[in-house]
Amino acid sequence: MRALVTGGAGFAGRHLLAALERAGHEAVGAGLPDGHGRPEHGAWHDLDVRSEPACRALLGELQPGWVFHLAGFAHVGRAEADPQACLAVNFGGTRAVLEACLAAAPRARVVLVSSAEVYGRVKPDELPVTESQPLRPATAYAVSKAAAEMAGHHAAARGLSVVILRPFNHIGPGQSEDFVASAFARQVARIEAGRQEPVLRVGNLAAVRDLLDVRDAVQGYLRAAEAGRDGAVYNVTSGDAVAVKDLLDTLLSLSEARVSVQPDPARMRPVDVPVFHGSPERLLADTGFRARLDLRRTLSDVLDYWRARETTSVERR
Amino acid sequence: MRALVTGGAGFAGRHLLAALERAGHEAVGAGLPDGHGRPEHGAWHDLDVRSEPACRALLGELQPGWVFHLAGFAHVGRAEADPQACLAVNFGGTRAVLEACLAAAPRARVVLVSSAEVYGRVKPDELPVTESQPLRPATAYAVSKAAAEMAGHHAAARGLSVVILRPFNHIGPGQSEDFVASAFARQVARIEAGRQEPVLRVGNLAAVRDLLDVRDAVQGYLRAAEAGRDGAVYNVTSGDAVAVKDLLDTLLSLSEARVSVQPDPARMRPVDVPVFHGSPERLLADTGFRARLDLRRTLSDVLDYWRARETTSVERR
Repeated sequence: MRALVTGGAGFAGRHLLAALERAGHEAVGAGLPDGHGRPEHGAWHDLDVRSEPACRALLGELQPGWVFHLAGFAHVGRAEADPQACLAVNFGGTRAVLEACLAAAPRARVVLVSSAEVYGRVKPDELPVTESQPLRPATAYAVSKAAAEMAGHHAAARGLSVVILRPFNHIGPGQSEDFVASAFARQVARIEAGRQEPVLRVGNLAAVRDLLDVRDAVQGYLRAAEAGRDGAVYNVTSGDAVAVKDLLDTLLSLSEARVSVQPDPARMRPVDVPVFHGSPERLLADTGFRARLDLRRTLSDVLDYWRARETTSVERR
Repeated sequence: MRALVTGGAGFAGRHLLAALERAGHEAVGAGLPDGHGRPEHGAWHDLDVRSEPACRALLGELQPGWVFHLAGFAHVGRAEADPQACLAVNFGGTRAVLEACLAAAPRARVVLVSSAEVYGRVKPDELPVTESQPLRPATAYAVSKAAAEMAGHHAAARGLSVVILRPFNHIGPGQSEDFVASAFARQVARIEAGRQEPVLRVGNLAAVRDLLDVRDAVQGYLRAAEAGRDGAVYNVTSGDAVAVKDLLDTLLSLSEARVSVQPDPARMRPVDVPVFHGSPERLLADTGFRARLDLRRTLSDVLDYWRARETTSVERR
């Protein structure tokens, strides 16, 4: 199958392109030319998803069987500071991709990668969150993703094959240190390399999160493309809830370094939900997807990723 | 209570301003200067809700206790033809009002008037629709309203008192003939006045709808402002399902005119749901709201409204 991945140079996009190639598909990435550098796998096209004509031209030319729409403004905190910019990409860009598919590649199946952030502040008795939980987005980022989902339903009502995914927190090698596991692991690697005093700065350790290895997550995306129902919404989740404190302890157990842990107010999210995890049942039932990598394995790979970068020259990064 | 009604010159807005005055509140309408003409009740301010600075200035000056946000692009068919214009008002305008409240009138309670269209195509086993039904908007109009709801949740998460209402179909005197009861009633009045051949053109008569008199609906809005829960979403509905065919028969029974009925493809909605009605239980439980006017009474008033216009000079309209 020819599969286009928007946001193909992003964290999940790179892993998805690699997984598509490994599964024998024709992987094509697209994204901003001044993005994160060309991914190692798949062909590449420059694309700003905010431009519907550009989307239409590319989709018309490629006629992909699958479009994985991952391009987006990914940082919750920065979205809160500039909601218009976030909306322009996450909502406007999604609308552009969908309208372009309807116009130029109407037989494509579109896998819209939304976010579990759309659920907002869930109450303890609403856990684990199922897909029928009402959306109560509590951040500008979540509003942009929820609005994008709505555009997905509108396209589905007009005959496009659309599957909507709500990934919970992804972690894995290659993720930016804006996210908790990378932030911790990079600090550990820097401490090991003697580049940082042995103090690890942390946000809210009490938070309990649903952490899924990105390499599992992209398998979930692939299974959703293959076997998801038209118009359906799926959580993409490990099904496990992990306290950030336990993540930190596991990570520290993987290192010989002696580290003291210090709270850092700057690392606290503006809106925080104490416990948040999702039900994996619907995607499992419809596609057979189940996460396979355990947290220790994931954190070991994340730490190795940062070790490789922190023990070589700073210039190489 | 000082109550601002955006879209105050619209169909529901005028009725709401009148109801607020009757209930002893200080009613203030706001809307586009080139709108539908000044309402008869309440003070008035020109306002384009797409302008956040304009919203901020007005809200800061007025410091209303309640803000009923009704301003919007109201026609489903025209929204489909120009989704950007619809989004700019219904989503952009709602965001502007909410952000302006947060900045300049943070103690106001905002009643966001969304629409039951956000539910999209519901299956027979999902009827009557409750507020926990997943949103699957099937029109550009519904996307804009669903996105506006998401902005409402975001504002609520930041401390604003927000109540979200999903009215089902409103009917009543003063409604534009873009809507079915007015379209039929005006034709009957024209036939009675000898201004139209005795042929009544109709859309899909099989459709079953939830029709609420606008005078009841605005009582529901008022009760929601008084007693709704912060952050809650409420259907505003009669709780009854009526076939459009029965509406037509009731209307014809109110007239002496002999009328033949003819299907008109131009009156068919682009996306149609055969049966659609909502559960009134949540708003009833939280606020005691219950619709009081029966359909025959409503249709009689709608017919009288059009008779008054079709028997006087065309210039007066």
